[in-house]
Amino acid sequence: MVDILHRVGVKSDLNSVYDTLATIDGLAGWWTTSTSGDSTVGGIVEFRFGDAGGSDMRVRELEPAKRVLWEVVAGPDEWVGTTISFDLKQEDDYTIVLFNHQGWREPVEFMHHCGTTWAKFLMSLKQLVETGKGAPYPDDVSVGNW
Amino acid sequence: MVDILHRVGVKSDLNSVYDTLATIDGLAGWWTTSTSGDSTVGGIVEFRFGDAGGSDMRVRELEPAKRVLWEVVAGPDEWVGTTISFDLKQEDDYTIVLFNHQGWREPVEFMHHCGTTWAKFLMSLKQLVETGKGAPYPDDVSVGNW
Repeated sequence: MVDILHRVGVKSDLNSVYDTLATIDGLAGWWTTSTSGDSTVGGIVEFRFGDAGGSDMRVRELEPAKRVLWEVVAGPDEWVGTTISFDLKQEDDYTIVLFNHQGWREPVEFMHHCGTTWAKFLMSLKQLVETGKGAPYPDDVSVGNW
Repeated sequence: MVDILHRVGVKSDLNSVYDTLATIDGLAGWWTTSTSGDSTVGGIVEFRFGDAGGSDMRVRELEPAKRVLWEVVAGPDEWVGTTISFDLKQEDDYTIVLFNHQGWREPVEFMHHCGTTWAKFLMSLKQLVETGKGAPYPDDVSVGNW
């Protein structure tokens, strides 16, 4: 089992964080401005990153203020068939996001890259909710030559 | 096997990046300003983060411009006995850092937190080498309530 795991704490209520994961506008505010599709259960959401391509996610689970689960149905070979989950809980003044991108077949170099990149965008999600402005693609900082 | 994997590309030569991993001054410039000890092979380097404590690393391998390997000899329970490696290679104008914190017994919530935090500090290392100024503790941005 090789997973990408992250944890961020957002100084906000559960619903504000959930909305950034369960709506097209919310997702466009922290991951990529080029987000479109149907974010209801069973729908497909398309994320694009210019020349770098992108991925299509089928929404598998939506539990308001609690959990979002996607399955990658198109995108990089290494991603197709993997799942991405966001589990939320409240601690003090924070909404904790536990992130898990699981089902990677092997710990390839691209997985290292995605580990760093997911952290960057989860910090963008935190910034979006706390300040009203995230840093989605193409306004993100590069993590390297990929 | 549950590892924390990251990849950053630093627009710089191999030696400049290696120096930030193999010297006390270099480490203090991106991880924590409170870094001390002996950074030669077999030596122990102490990293401190104020009230949050810290960790002691025994330097196991140093290959100039190529690789640094530490073993955690004191610190959080989940860290003791784990290893942390930095493998370097050149690609175009970039020095690629492949990071691996391996040997975690279980994917506990603290591991999620450390996954995000390592990404933050590796981006600080990149910033240090590229601009001359990193964001080590206590000048780092919080990733949450821990």
